Amino acid sequence: MTGEWIGYVAAAMTTLSFVPQAVRTLRTRDTSGISLWMYVVFTVGVCCWFFYGVVLMSWPMIVSNLVTLGLSGAILAMKLRYR
Amino acid sequence: MTGEWIGYVAAAMTTLSFVPQAVRTLRTRDTSGISLWMYVVFTVGVCCWFFYGVVLMSWPMIVSNLVTLGLSGAILAMKLRYR
Repeated sequence: MTGEWIGYVAAAMTTLSFVPQAVRTLRTRDTSGISLWMYVVFTVGVCCWFFYGVVLMSWPMIVSNLVTLGLSGAILAMKLRYR
Repeated sequence: MTGEWIGYVAAAMTTLSFVPQAVRTLRTRDTSGISLWMYVVFTVGVCCWFFYGVVLMSWPMIVSNLVTLGLSGAILAMKLRYR
């Protein structure tokens, strides 16, 4: 379908954008500017996207949300630990 | 469709999760723990989701991505300004 590539670029970017944040937080252990509530709500929201992907049986949604879940869950865990 | 409500809950949560981060950064001006590259890549990615929503003529995608774009763009602008 025409324009479907924009969807794949979008999914890759919004998923992989959490890599530099996770790496930065892991290295510096500086979580002072990060909002705990953002990562609590975001991580639960990504869980919902994952289950919605299961309902739709959409593998791109399932896979990309599992990756995002791992990254945002790691940032949330570091926020809870290093504060 | 059965299970569609999970998609709406997911969209609301991942969109609104950026509100506490934007409010916190606006109040504290503390952006030290925030990754610049996360917000650069994420904001461009949300632009792509917006255009993909236009391609699909999906109003829920268009509206929710416009809201997310405003929030992540504001956080990115504050990261660039208060550092």
